[in-house]
Amino acid sequence: MKILHTSPRTDGFAMPAEFDRHQGCLMIWPVRGDSWRLGGWPARKAFCEIAAAIAASEALTVLVAPSQYETARAMLSPEIRLVEMTTDDSWARDICPTFVRHDKGIIRGIDWGFNAWGGLTDGLYFPWDDDNHAARKVCDLFRTDCYDYRNFILEGGSIHSDGEGTILTTESCLLSAGRNPHLTQAEIEDKLCQALGAEKVLWLPRGIWGDETNEHVDNICAFTAPGQVVLAWTDNTDDPQYPLSAACEAYLSRQKDARGRSIRITHLPIPQNPVCITEEECQGLDLWDGEPTRTPGERMAASYVNFYIANDAVLVPQFDDPMDKLACDILSAQFPHRKIVPVAAREILLGGGNIHCITQQIPSTERSSFYA
Amino acid sequence: MKILHTSPRTDGFAMPAEFDRHQGCLMIWPVRGDSWRLGGWPARKAFCEIAAAIAASEALTVLVAPSQYETARAMLSPEIRLVEMTTDDSWARDICPTFVRHDKGIIRGIDWGFNAWGGLTDGLYFPWDDDNHAARKVCDLFRTDCYDYRNFILEGGSIHSDGEGTILTTESCLLSAGRNPHLTQAEIEDKLCQALGAEKVLWLPRGIWGDETNEHVDNICAFTAPGQVVLAWTDNTDDPQYPLSAACEAYLSRQKDARGRSIRITHLPIPQNPVCITEEECQGLDLWDGEPTRTPGERMAASYVNFYIANDAVLVPQFDDPMDKLACDILSAQFPHRKIVPVAAREILLGGGNIHCITQQIPSTERSSFYA
Repeated sequence: MKILHTSPRTDGFAMPAEFDRHQGCLMIWPVRGDSWRLGGWPARKAFCEIAAAIAASEALTVLVAPSQYETARAMLSPEIRLVEMTTDDSWARDICPTFVRHDKGIIRGIDWGFNAWGGLTDGLYFPWDDDNHAARKVCDLFRTDCYDYRNFILEGGSIHSDGEGTILTTESCLLSAGRNPHLTQAEIEDKLCQALGAEKVLWLPRGIWGDETNEHVDNICAFTAPGQVVLAWTDNTDDPQYPLSAACEAYLSRQKDARGRSIRITHLPIPQNPVCITEEECQGLDLWDGEPTRTPGERMAASYVNFYIANDAVLVPQFDDPMDKLACDILSAQFPHRKIVPVAAREILLGGGNIHCITQQIPSTERSSFYA
Repeated sequence: MKILHTSPRTDGFAMPAEFDRHQGCLMIWPVRGDSWRLGGWPARKAFCEIAAAIAASEALTVLVAPSQYETARAMLSPEIRLVEMTTDDSWARDICPTFVRHDKGIIRGIDWGFNAWGGLTDGLYFPWDDDNHAARKVCDLFRTDCYDYRNFILEGGSIHSDGEGTILTTESCLLSAGRNPHLTQAEIEDKLCQALGAEKVLWLPRGIWGDETNEHVDNICAFTAPGQVVLAWTDNTDDPQYPLSAACEAYLSRQKDARGRSIRITHLPIPQNPVCITEEECQGLDLWDGEPTRTPGERMAASYVNFYIANDAVLVPQFDDPMDKLACDILSAQFPHRKIVPVAAREILLGGGNIHCITQQIPSTERSSFYA
C-alpha cells in the first residue's frame, strides 16, 4: 500500500455511484455497550441478517475486534470473510475508505480524517483514534493504494456520488463547527471535487431531524440513478422533519447536476409513527463517562433513505411501521432490476444509524452500465 | 471459510514441497519482550530484512498486533501487506495453517492444535490461545476452507514435505510427552499421512542439540528436491550435535521415500563457533512469570538448515561465523536457479528460532515443475 499525497481527480480517479457494480462490501462487527444495548447482542442479529443479504450478492468482509472473532465467526455464514481490525465502533460507511476508480481498472482508497462526527466540539465519543486509522488498514488489507486526506475531516455517510461528476452533501454537516471550520464552503467544495473526481457539489441545507451526525446526507437523500434521487419526506407540516425536507426539495428543484440535468425527485415517506427509544432499551446501554448515552422517549432519526444498494439487491430498513411497505414499493420502482430486501432495523437505529451507515461498498475495477 | 472435518488425503489434497511455486508468504511482527530483547527492536530490523527479500519474490502478508500496526507499517516497504491479527508470538511456521492443494487448483489450510511446543508439560509460554486460533483466522483472511485438526497437536516446523508423498519429521518432537502422548507412533504417522496427503513418514531420531521446540525437523534437515536433503552436520565428535546428526544420517541412509528412492544426503555444516547468548543480550529480555527466559552463555540452536525457499531466492541465516559462506555455497549448488540471500540471523536465533520458523509459504494453486 502506497500512501499518496496527490489529488485523485488529477490522477484520473473518481468515485463511482453506489448503484454501479461492486467487487465487495465491508461491515464492522458491533461491540461497544454504550452504542449497542445488551452488550451488542440484539444489534448483532440485525447485522447478521444484513450481512447474509449482502453476501448473497457480493463478497463481504466483516471487520471484528480481536475478542469477538470467535463469536462473530459462529454467527456469520461461512462465505463471509471475517478479519480482525481494531476500531472504536461499527460505522463502516464513516470510517472505511471511500474508494475511487480509474478507467484503467485500478481502485484506490481515500483516508479521510475522522473525529467521531465533530471531535471535541460535538463529537459522539472519545477517543476515536482506532476509527481514524481504519481506512488505511482497509486499503492495506485490499492491497489498494491510499490517498492521504487525514487533514480533511469527512465521513463517508456525508457524501453521495452519481458516478458522473456530481456529489450530494449537506451544509448542516460539512459546514459544522466540528468538521473543517478553517475552510470556507468553496474550499470544502474544491476538496470534495479534487478527492472524488467530481465537478459539482449539490449542497442540501439539512438532513433528518435529530440526526446526531449533524444530518448526514445518506439519511435524507440518495441517488438512485444519475439525475434522480429519493428524498425523505412527510406531508405533515407539524412534523419537525417537514421544514428540513421542504428546504431540501426547494433547493434541489432549482439545481442542475454536473451534466446539466435537472434533478428528478421522488418522495420517500418517513415512518408514520416517530421511532423513539424506550426506557427498557435505554437501561440496556452502558454508561459513557458516567452518563447515559440516550434518554428514554428520545426520537431516533429513522429514515428509509438509509438503504444499501448491493449488486443484486437493495436492503431497506424497516421500523414495524405502516409506511414500511410503501417505502419498499417506491424503491422497487426505482431499482427494477434488483431484489428489495426489507430488514428489521430498529436495533441499528438505536445505535445511531442504519443500514447504509454500517456498510461500505468496494467498487468493481470495471465500470458497469447494468443500472441503465 | 468452511470448517471441514474430513481428511485432506481422502479429499484429494496434499502438501506441496516448499520448493514448489508459492502464491505468497506469511510472517508475524515480533512484539513480546520476553522472546525478543529490547522490546523487539533488534528483531524487527532482522524481520524487515527478511520481509524485503521475500517480498521481492512473492506476495508477503505480515500479521501484526493492533498496537504495532503503525510502527510496522512505517518500517516495512509499501508492497508488503500488513494485516492486524492477535497472536501470542511471531512464529508463523508453527501457528499459521499448513496449506494443502488439490490438482484442480484449490488450496485449503490445516488448523493444527497448538500448545506452545509442549503445553503444560514442557511448553515455552502460557497462555497460547491466540496462537492456537491464528490458523483459522489466516484461512479466513485468504478465503480458503480449513481442515479442523485442533485435536492433534502439531507445529509446521516439525514437518517437511517433498511434495511427492514423503514427510520428514523427528521422533524427539512428535513423540514427546507434550504433544500427543495418547497416540502411538503408528497413529501419529497415519494422522500425518491423512492430513498431508502423504504415503510415507521418515522419522529422524533427533534434531539440533538444545533446540527448545523438542528438536523440530526444520532446524536439522530439509528437502531440497524429491529424494534429496541437506542435513546439519559437524565432523567434531566432541560437539554435542555430533551424535544427533550421526543418528539422523544413519537412519536416512537406510530409508527409501514414498516413490522408492534412496535419500541423497548433503551435509550442511553447523556454525564453527557455538552461538551463545551474552549477558548483555539477556539483560534486554523481559522476565516471564518473574523468571529470566534465557541464561547468559546459553548455547542457541544455530543451524543453516533453517533457511526459507522463496520463489526466486533462498534466504540463509548467517551467524558471523567462518562457516557462513560455505553454507551459502552448498545451498547455492542445491538451488542453482535461485538467488542465495544471506541474512544476519542472530537476533532471530535469540528468540528461539530462525528464518524458516518465522515464515510460512502459501502454495500456488497450480503445481509447478520449475524446480526440476
